[in-house]
Amino acid sequence: MSEIPNILANRYATESMRAIWSPEGKVILERELWIAVMKAQAELGLEIPEDDILSYEKVKNDVNIASIMERERITRHDVKARIEEFCDLAGCEHIHKGMTSRDLTENVEQIQIYRSLKVIQSKAAAALIAISLKAREWKDLYISARTHNVAAQTSTMGKRMAMFGEELLGAFFALESTIESYPARGIKGAVGTQLDQLALFKDDTDKVSMLEQKVASHLGILKISTNVGQVYPRSLDLRVISTLAELSSGPSSFCNTLRLMAGHELAGEGFAKGQVGSSAMPHKMNARSCERVNGFNVLLKGYLTMAGSLSGNQWNEGDVSCSVVRRVMLPDAFFVADGLFETCLTILNQMEVYPDVINNENERYLPFLTTTTFLMECVKEGTGREKAHELIKKHAVAALQALRSGEARENDLIDRLSNDDGLKISKDRLNELLSAAASRAGAAGAQIEEFLNSIEEIKTRYPDSINYSPGSIL
Amino acid sequence: MSEIPNILANRYATESMRAIWSPEGKVILERELWIAVMKAQAELGLEIPEDDILSYEKVKNDVNIASIMERERITRHDVKARIEEFCDLAGCEHIHKGMTSRDLTENVEQIQIYRSLKVIQSKAAAALIAISLKAREWKDLYISARTHNVAAQTSTMGKRMAMFGEELLGAFFALESTIESYPARGIKGAVGTQLDQLALFKDDTDKVSMLEQKVASHLGILKISTNVGQVYPRSLDLRVISTLAELSSGPSSFCNTLRLMAGHELAGEGFAKGQVGSSAMPHKMNARSCERVNGFNVLLKGYLTMAGSLSGNQWNEGDVSCSVVRRVMLPDAFFVADGLFETCLTILNQMEVYPDVINNENERYLPFLTTTTFLMECVKEGTGREKAHELIKKHAVAALQALRSGEARENDLIDRLSNDDGLKISKDRLNELLSAAASRAGAAGAQIEEFLNSIEEIKTRYPDSINYSPGSIL
Amino acid sequence: MSEIPNILANRYATESMRAIWSPEGKVILERELWIAVMKAQAELGLEIPEDDILSYEKVKNDVNIASIMERERITRHDVKARIEEFCDLAGCEHIHKGMTSRDLTENVEQIQIYRSLKVIQSKAAAALIAISLKAREWKDLYISARTHNVAAQTSTMGKRMAMFGEELLGAFFALESTIESYPARGIKGAVGTQLDQLALFKDDTDKVSMLEQKVASHLGILKISTNVGQVYPRSLDLRVISTLAELSSGPSSFCNTLRLMAGHELAGEGFAKGQVGSSAMPHKMNARSCERVNGFNVLLKGYLTMAGSLSGNQWNEGDVSCSVVRRVMLPDAFFVADGLFETCLTILNQMEVYPDVINNENERYLPFLTTTTFLMECVKEGTGREKAHELIKKHAVAALQALRSGEARENDLIDRLSNDDGLKISKDRLNELLSAAASRAGAAGAQIEEFLNSIEEIKTRYPDSINYSPGSIL
Amino acid sequence: MSEIPNILANRYATESMRAIWSPEGKVILERELWIAVMKAQAELGLEIPEDDILSYEKVKNDVNIASIMERERITRHDVKARIEEFCDLAGCEHIHKGMTSRDLTENVEQIQIYRSLKVIQSKAAAALIAISLKAREWKDLYISARTHNVAAQTSTMGKRMAMFGEELLGAFFALESTIESYPARGIKGAVGTQLDQLALFKDDTDKVSMLEQKVASHLGILKISTNVGQVYPRSLDLRVISTLAELSSGPSSFCNTLRLMAGHELAGEGFAKGQVGSSAMPHKMNARSCERVNGFNVLLKGYLTMAGSLSGNQWNEGDVSCSVVRRVMLPDAFFVADGLFETCLTILNQMEVYPDVINNENERYLPFLTTTTFLMECVKEGTGREKAHELIKKHAVAALQALRSGEARENDLIDRLSNDDGLKISKDRLNELLSAAASRAGAAGAQIEEFLNSIEEIKTRYPDSINYSPGSIL
Repeated sequence: MSEIPNILANRYATESMRAIWSPEGKVILERELWIAVMKAQAELGLEIPEDDILSYEKVKNDVNIASIMERERITRHDVKARIEEFCDLAGCEHIHKGMTSRDLTENVEQIQIYRSLKVIQSKAAAALIAISLKAREWKDLYISARTHNVAAQTSTMGKRMAMFGEELLGAFFALESTIESYPARGIKGAVGTQLDQLALFKDDTDKVSMLEQKVASHLGILKISTNVGQVYPRSLDLRVISTLAELSSGPSSFCNTLRLMAGHELAGEGFAKGQVGSSAMPHKMNARSCERVNGFNVLLKGYLTMAGSLSGNQWNEGDVSCSVVRRVMLPDAFFVADGLFETCLTILNQMEVYPDVINNENERYLPFLTTTTFLMECVKEGTGREKAHELIKKHAVAALQALRSGEARENDLIDRLSNDDGLKISKDRLNELLSAAASRAGAAGAQIEEFLNSIEEIKTRYPDSINYSPGSIL
Repeated sequence: MSEIPNILANRYATESMRAIWSPEGKVILERELWIAVMKAQAELGLEIPEDDILSYEKVKNDVNIASIMERERITRHDVKARIEEFCDLAGCEHIHKGMTSRDLTENVEQIQIYRSLKVIQSKAAAALIAISLKAREWKDLYISARTHNVAAQTSTMGKRMAMFGEELLGAFFALESTIESYPARGIKGAVGTQLDQLALFKDDTDKVSMLEQKVASHLGILKISTNVGQVYPRSLDLRVISTLAELSSGPSSFCNTLRLMAGHELAGEGFAKGQVGSSAMPHKMNARSCERVNGFNVLLKGYLTMAGSLSGNQWNEGDVSCSVVRRVMLPDAFFVADGLFETCLTILNQMEVYPDVINNENERYLPFLTTTTFLMECVKEGTGREKAHELIKKHAVAALQALRSGEARENDLIDRLSNDDGLKISKDRLNELLSAAASRAGAAGAQIEEFLNSIEEIKTRYPDSINYSPGSIL
Repeated sequence: MSEIPNILANRYATESMRAIWSPEGKVILERELWIAVMKAQAELGLEIPEDDILSYEKVKNDVNIASIMERERITRHDVKARIEEFCDLAGCEHIHKGMTSRDLTENVEQIQIYRSLKVIQSKAAAALIAISLKAREWKDLYISARTHNVAAQTSTMGKRMAMFGEELLGAFFALESTIESYPARGIKGAVGTQLDQLALFKDDTDKVSMLEQKVASHLGILKISTNVGQVYPRSLDLRVISTLAELSSGPSSFCNTLRLMAGHELAGEGFAKGQVGSSAMPHKMNARSCERVNGFNVLLKGYLTMAGSLSGNQWNEGDVSCSVVRRVMLPDAFFVADGLFETCLTILNQMEVYPDVINNENERYLPFLTTTTFLMECVKEGTGREKAHELIKKHAVAALQALRSGEARENDLIDRLSNDDGLKISKDRLNELLSAAASRAGAAGAQIEEFLNSIEEIKTRYPDSINYSPGSIL
Repeated sequence: MSEIPNILANRYATESMRAIWSPEGKVILERELWIAVMKAQAELGLEIPEDDILSYEKVKNDVNIASIMERERITRHDVKARIEEFCDLAGCEHIHKGMTSRDLTENVEQIQIYRSLKVIQSKAAAALIAISLKAREWKDLYISARTHNVAAQTSTMGKRMAMFGEELLGAFFALESTIESYPARGIKGAVGTQLDQLALFKDDTDKVSMLEQKVASHLGILKISTNVGQVYPRSLDLRVISTLAELSSGPSSFCNTLRLMAGHELAGEGFAKGQVGSSAMPHKMNARSCERVNGFNVLLKGYLTMAGSLSGNQWNEGDVSCSVVRRVMLPDAFFVADGLFETCLTILNQMEVYPDVINNENERYLPFLTTTTFLMECVKEGTGREKAHELIKKHAVAALQALRSGEARENDLIDRLSNDDGLKISKDRLNELLSAAASRAGAAGAQIEEFLNSIEEIKTRYPDSINYSPGSIL
């Protein structure tokens, strides 16, 4: 039986994320950290022959997962197994001096997390840019905006895009803040006191401090924690996962809404070349990628529950009941987030709107949405407010009833109103008002502009995201 | 870069569970279902040449995942890709007649779930039996039972085991009920009305009903749903995952408690041969397997959140936003449950208790736990109740204070009481009462017996579980 | 500032549930348990004057929450405060003999849970009955059933109701199983060994056993746990809450679907008399009660996470970190479940469907849904299968395109097909086939009958639920 | 039957939080918002008589919840009910002009959230300060720091406090960022386009913009969203709740650890005056407040699941399935957070450590923790490294075995080593090394100093938190 693959990694995530979390990749990150510590220790005066360091560097990329597993099956200690493997390959024993397992694994996992956050950041910026293109494209496409899933007032499709875009933008700023404030645990020893490094350096606190700075600059993470135990606080994982969950919300609500629109052919997520919808039923172009994004969103909430469970549950200087959880939750949550943005970018690139179907919907509901304007007009023309209100309401209810009962297929409110002598308002005037109302979307245009301006600033700061093209999705 | 493995499957779960969920295994399950439907259709009168059925059967186990993926990359439709692959291999086109994708995938996933539940059932029975052995072994080992993590009253280690055992037993009965009531969706067509099978059989409802019975008996699931849509209700997944979460609770609380005991050397989870604890610190025999069980328990709660999110969220006859979630949640939850019972069985087989350390603890706390008995004795001997109570309390607080202040290393309450002339009770009598109290665990013995009897019944019903030996864990 | 009310209790739940969980109600339940224990103890030989028992009974309903809180503010021990209050009222001190706080609180909370489950059971039965009425009423109302939110095949509105009904029915059976298997903790003492009752009865195990039986029959819960610690296992709470979550799923998916239907006027949840929709926009009859049911479903998933967090996390014979969680989670989850069924019953009583709008939708999509039938007819009439397939697909895509582009407002596929000389099929024949297809819902009718039969059995077993009328909801 | 109280509000939260969320308080906040809008509208040119505004202001605090509920029971519309009540009281009808319900409720809820975050911020600052006092007080109290719940290396109690403190500090900075970036929805109308305000002001966008600025400054929230729909994005609630969950983690892990310490009398949470521990068992001073903090932490994770469920699940411009969830989740999560910090502050004020018991534990484990130092000394004195290692390990294992078997009650490793002629190391020298090791806590002191410095900065920025005293807790 072949090994069972991680379906999130292999089916949905891309190479940029897989490379960070692959078993081989992790072994190499660990070895790089060991070498970085070893070099720093040598520079600070520990006797480690330069040739031996070179021996390690030479075999750094020689990763044999099977051999390491074989060792672990005997030692029952994963870090020991990896130390032995690396030392045997290099033919010497200088790594891991004054280090405890967690000095290795915590920092390596934090590099993985940090780099993954950067990957997501770059794709989220690309998603913002893609949304902005659609917001601009459809800024004058009038739609019947819905609340409670019922047509409520005119807006534009561009504004709808900008609304989801602004939600993502807020989460994007939160992501930036999470990245900026992210602290590495550093080389803190078994219980966080740096005792063993201090022993190595004969209590020279300056050297130990310099060692940690050198390691930090290797990690590429600027902040370093001071008071930690064996592990960094798990609430940091909670912050990371909840940032991912927040990031996924705008895209997920957007996809939810696109599924609603697709159900009535107002829009569709588009089809890739060669894609089989349903040959028997060509009308059936399911919003399966949108559904997937909603599924990814659900997955993230599950990982959020896991992160929540670990957080606030530490025993003393650290226990390891979190180990198996983090082995699963961290990579899987990032694979999901990666897949979500890839899928979302594909949707944004392919999606279509059907202006005529949208327009039909507008025509159906607009007379209802314009009754307050009709009322004001009647009053202006001399009908008493109470009388006008009563008559208009009567006709509106009747028009709705006619639609529901099948008596009418189209909204005939205008006819009903113009035929009522009590109202004294002509069909032409009513249609004129209706026509004006059809493109009254208030501040939507200005709001879109403001969103587009914010995205210009994102483009300046994340130029690589401008032309990012998602991988081909399944 | 090699494929990224599913760490839960490959590191923690066993072959019995991996076989059910492997990509190859799933393709074979699907092909078996197609063949079963095809045979049933032929028996019921559809013209399907026997040779063609044989052609399918011959290539059933020829699974080439890469080739299937290649097809899916073009069709963007996973089931279509697998139909084409199988038909090309067999050289004919008879499978999937009158079936919709979900007729295939829903039922196959339900076989996977059903078989997985049976695997877990068998291992949970083994865990119950293993707990019962320990409950019997330690039925007379007196411990200071704790509430609020503070010594409260004497109990026995056997009773403590039986307590966690009875929790697991309750969950085990719930699991049996989940298995018994589990209904397969059956061959219901695109929206649940069996329209296409009825069309195939010219509206012969008896035949369609017989077809479904034949398929059900192939699945091995006795119950079949009647009113479903495209999919079976996702609350059924919630029931399954919450059953797993409930099952994990007794083992997890047991492991939590063993970690607490290990921290003060009252017990330990034992060590496998060759296992490296910490060579520098031989006293450091960490309860890492127990921690892992607690971690597994956390993972299940995350999958429970996912199952909860899907449940009650269906659109119309079914939407597929659940697809990616279930692809991850279902196998991963079962891998976790499998790993949890394997780990738990290993702990139960290897764990040790340290009776002398336990006894030291009993000695330390017993005088405090016996103060009410002392009080009754004093009253019997003629001291007024209020006076006796006041004096005993005074001495108890002082003895505690002495322990906390370091003035005393051992509990000297007996001395304090016997030296107080106001109490008129001799040291010998006090020690006699103390000694009697040391082995007063109330109904613990009878309660353990009752648990052991329940487990005898489990043994009768699950004889294969009696000698089940867990695989070697990492 | 007045006290802050529990919004779930006071705004959404009904008196039947509030009475179980009110502070006064709980105090009375506790007092009844104390009296039951006291009577049992007296009957079994403890010297408790009959007059004193009467004194307690006389003041049992004299509940002064403020006075109890005053006492707790001093003792910092809620049970002590309530003992003192009750004894002061009665003027004697006989309650709580040989009992520990948890002997009181665990059992009382279990009565509350058990009775609440029964209330929910009765309302869930009523909901099943209400669904069955609608399934029968609309068994011949043909709808365009949807998958992926896109019209897929014809079904009936009755079948759709039965689908959600059968989901609820499955959960209902799970609820019955939860109730039947629910065990009370019993009078087990501080760590579960019954030590103090045994001491009271001079180690007479028979008497202690009889005491527990008498208490159990007072509680009305038939099963009693044997091996527990200070508390009953918290996985039992998980089972209860997950049963509620499962129960809520069918109603929640039904409401989700009704919201989708309401958005296109296929159906509506109905309006109570006097209810203000939106006077300005009479068409805007929001499915606010359906939205609320979906919200209740979300709340239950939050309480499920809480229950999951407690489960498997016990320290030794019990810790009390669960206390504050259970004080909130248990009543609130039941208030939610109660409100959910009340709301759902109201919706079922008031909801409307609009057959003409449904019919319009059927007409729009039916030609697409019938293309496979057209194909078979063309083949029967002599056109080659491949040629017919190609032509039909071409026209179907064009018809869809015309609808999306606004070129056509209604589906003109029939015209396109009949005008194509290559197909040789008349408009009359096409319309005949279409008309037959319009009412082909496969086994839907028989499936509904099966559901109705199941509900007849529910009615026999839960006769009180037949005429249950929900309270007026906000 | 009296109203059922919100137990979180009334039992655990304080007046500062209750005042924000009480029904009366909310009605007043709404009325203040209406008045603010009305005044702004008048200033910007709408004709609203000054006297009428005064009429509203005069009755602003006349809140009659029962009367409002009476109205809602008829209208089935909560906002309508409150508009009518307020207008009837004032005797005129000028409020809510051009506003939709959500213009009122969203903004008012956001004021509640924003003010609640500020309350929590102030109490979290107080908790940081209280932790810092303990970190300083115990900076030289040496403890056996534990990993995997097993003694691992010497640290100090001060460092342990600083460790949990630094976790809280990180979350505190995240809270500051959440507050700073928090945007109000503003007065955006039914679907977010400001259509109705623009209509009121005859499309004068400047006026509408000024109106919103005036309202924002009334709210006290500096940021205002631009592109929203009917509601602000629910991922903002997710951010708020996850910030609270993160904030609770340091305190919760601290309390978890204190419960572990209390179980072995290394420390205790302290007792309030008059508090009844257990009069029968004076040693039983349960860490009930710590347990409660852990329970609060669990509650927050449940609310986090609710917030997660709402986030990413929006339909179109907004649906109201979130309404009932937010009515419960938002206030309850803040009541929990409030109660958590109150409880935590009480613990920090009352907690005790028992240096002598701690010292006993150090003595027990220190010889094991010092074996590497012994090894280095032996090598320095001339014994071969391998031989020394072998002998020391042998003795260490034997010493541990003796402790576990009960043969020894105290660690006799020093004796065993000094008696071994192969090692050539005197008992005096060993004790000297041991004694030096007893106070070697590496960088702990410097790390604490760094933490204290950070808290000095917090004190400067949050001076009111320095002397904050928690309310009396139950």
